[in-house]
Amino acid sequence: MHILVINTGSSSIKYQLINMEDESVVAKGVCERNGADGRIIHSAKGKTVKFDVSLSDYKTIAKKIIPLFLEGETAVVGNLDEIGALAHRVSIGGELAGESIAATNENIRYIERFIDLAPIHMPVQLAFANACREVFEKQVHAIVFDSACHLTMPEKAYLYPIPYEYYEKYGIRKFGYHSISFRYIAARIAEIKGQTNLQGIKLVACHLGSGSSIAAIKDGKSVDTTMGYTPLDGIMMGTRSGTVDPSALIYLAKYENLSFEEVTEILNHKSGFLGVSGVSNDSREIEAEADKGNKRAKVTNEMFAYQAKKYIGSYAAAMNGIDILAFSGGIGENSVRMRERICKEMEFFGIELDEKKNHDQNQMEGRISKSGSRVEIWIIPTNEEITMARDAYDILRFGKPQRP
Amino acid sequence: MHILVINTGSSSIKYQLINMEDESVVAKGVCERNGADGRIIHSAKGKTVKFDVSLSDYKTIAKKIIPLFLEGETAVVGNLDEIGALAHRVSIGGELAGESIAATNENIRYIERFIDLAPIHMPVQLAFANACREVFEKQVHAIVFDSACHLTMPEKAYLYPIPYEYYEKYGIRKFGYHSISFRYIAARIAEIKGQTNLQGIKLVACHLGSGSSIAAIKDGKSVDTTMGYTPLDGIMMGTRSGTVDPSALIYLAKYENLSFEEVTEILNHKSGFLGVSGVSNDSREIEAEADKGNKRAKVTNEMFAYQAKKYIGSYAAAMNGIDILAFSGGIGENSVRMRERICKEMEFFGIELDEKKNHDQNQMEGRISKSGSRVEIWIIPTNEEITMARDAYDILRFGKPQRP
Repeated sequence: MHILVINTGSSSIKYQLINMEDESVVAKGVCERNGADGRIIHSAKGKTVKFDVSLSDYKTIAKKIIPLFLEGETAVVGNLDEIGALAHRVSIGGELAGESIAATNENIRYIERFIDLAPIHMPVQLAFANACREVFEKQVHAIVFDSACHLTMPEKAYLYPIPYEYYEKYGIRKFGYHSISFRYIAARIAEIKGQTNLQGIKLVACHLGSGSSIAAIKDGKSVDTTMGYTPLDGIMMGTRSGTVDPSALIYLAKYENLSFEEVTEILNHKSGFLGVSGVSNDSREIEAEADKGNKRAKVTNEMFAYQAKKYIGSYAAAMNGIDILAFSGGIGENSVRMRERICKEMEFFGIELDEKKNHDQNQMEGRISKSGSRVEIWIIPTNEEITMARDAYDILRFGKPQRP
Repeated sequence: MHILVINTGSSSIKYQLINMEDESVVAKGVCERNGADGRIIHSAKGKTVKFDVSLSDYKTIAKKIIPLFLEGETAVVGNLDEIGALAHRVSIGGELAGESIAATNENIRYIERFIDLAPIHMPVQLAFANACREVFEKQVHAIVFDSACHLTMPEKAYLYPIPYEYYEKYGIRKFGYHSISFRYIAARIAEIKGQTNLQGIKLVACHLGSGSSIAAIKDGKSVDTTMGYTPLDGIMMGTRSGTVDPSALIYLAKYENLSFEEVTEILNHKSGFLGVSGVSNDSREIEAEADKGNKRAKVTNEMFAYQAKKYIGSYAAAMNGIDILAFSGGIGENSVRMRERICKEMEFFGIELDEKKNHDQNQMEGRISKSGSRVEIWIIPTNEEITMARDAYDILRFGKPQRP
């Protein structure tokens, strides 16, 4: 049985066809912007096919993909029935969406109320999911939320210290994101430890990339995380500020005579790595600039590592300990130096990085702490697609997800 | 020699006359609002004098105080020359104000540019300082900043992850506050430890009251603190929110159709303990309500303690350790239960509160950790006035402050 995983972002729709026998990816592709229109790039069996497609008509996009699975040199399934379900990533499903659900009309109507919280992602995510439901009419469709795993947070962690009525009236609270990635990381750590869950383990998972967040996971359940009501809060990111003193924002708006929309635009698209360095939103380019002596690039790296350290410390306090520190995401998996900066001078916490392992193990799953380190440090390359596929497969077979 | 300490807040002007021979308070008083007008309540030698005064004329207020020191049953000095200097508290002096300075015309002009950051406090602080300079014309006048001690923070701690130009253009950065209290706490800890400074010691100082902030003090120098550009940021307070997800604020403004001024008003005056509990901004009343079973009062207490824990953990990460945890301020000195909540389940950090000492030592200076606790926990009742008086006394004798 195959599952088709749909990962819709702000500028592209990625998909993977996964064979659930061995969880292997048998085909994958992306539909991305190409000038005013779109282009599909599809790969399977070592072959790649490219062709143009209208971006405005989601049903046509969905229809164009089907023959790629069934016919010609990229054919990987004999007929459409071999695809049992589709998994659709959706940013947020509010307080009731603690796990993945079937994409029924009723459920989609419920989700629509949160579109406003991810205005760039969610309209495309839901529109493409609906188009797929029409085109893949015999398949089960699952919605996999990127905020789901954090609903286990206690009230003291998810409430904001603003008037309570705004929580009651509008549901303004911390939701957290990167849930699909954190679930994969937690599941991998459990497998590595030979456990079915993470009972008794205090895990701090760092998903660090162009979007970054950190989660405190105790006994396999998220107890706190850095992102908030939307994915803007927490640790600084490529172009997003993360947490900022509210008064600094208010004075900035006053000094520059900005509207809320303009402040939002600055915080989402002109801040973080890009804003501090003035060079790039890409951590690799900032490393290169810092090497050339660029002071603002240097301080950008220091700020990011310092913020990560402080969140790790605060989550050690939240859980009264830390057993495992896991790195994932574009920076977490690939940046030897950023992992080094974050783990440096953290012996008080029992965090001791093995420099050689950190270097040799780069980009690969493995333990990178010294053998005597009280805290195990791991690189866990994330795999959101397989997590989504497993949920859809469970919903197909059992009506609901079977794993954390 | 005597020093007159002036502590001007938003609703009152408090003063203390301190004899620097033994640092004893020989007279003290407050000029507070009394209906439309003001009232001076003055105490010395066990006597209290009360009379009305116009609040609008600061020079008259200053003039009315003098005879209280010199004449009648509250007389404590023979002539005005025995008062060598006045110490004026000023909220913020920007990046150049790392220590207390003489209140010259030039210095006051420099400080005036920061009025906007403490719009309720600073206009009164500076107006009353200027009035005193005219009335106490022979005395030296010192300005003691409440943001000064945090200028030792590194760039990675004080920069915000927003476009760097706003730091260059407007100086938007973390300043931190409660500096006078933190300096007193650090000085007391040094005295207790028999040191002239805090070399080699990692201190987390918690000034918790209706305004709260926490500082990481390494080798006697502040390396990080929770308040920011203004005293709004950081841990939640009586009516102030502290840190809030910027997106939550932006959405709140959108949902409620609020201006920046209205959001500022909510964050400063309707949030924190008051906003979450819906009961009071006073932690004692919230404790009482929580005891009666009020759930929102309960979660308010839990949130505050949880936030404090997380900051303590993050500062342990910032300093790669913690040796001493100090409690001060209205809540820090007086709330047995809040100290208990904060220190509970922090054994990972070596923080072990002695419940009996915590109870018996309440409101008094002393160590309240278990004898085996790796981290020493102390109650240090703060004394901002003596810190201010010492600075003014140093400026009087040596032209500048002599101690950290």
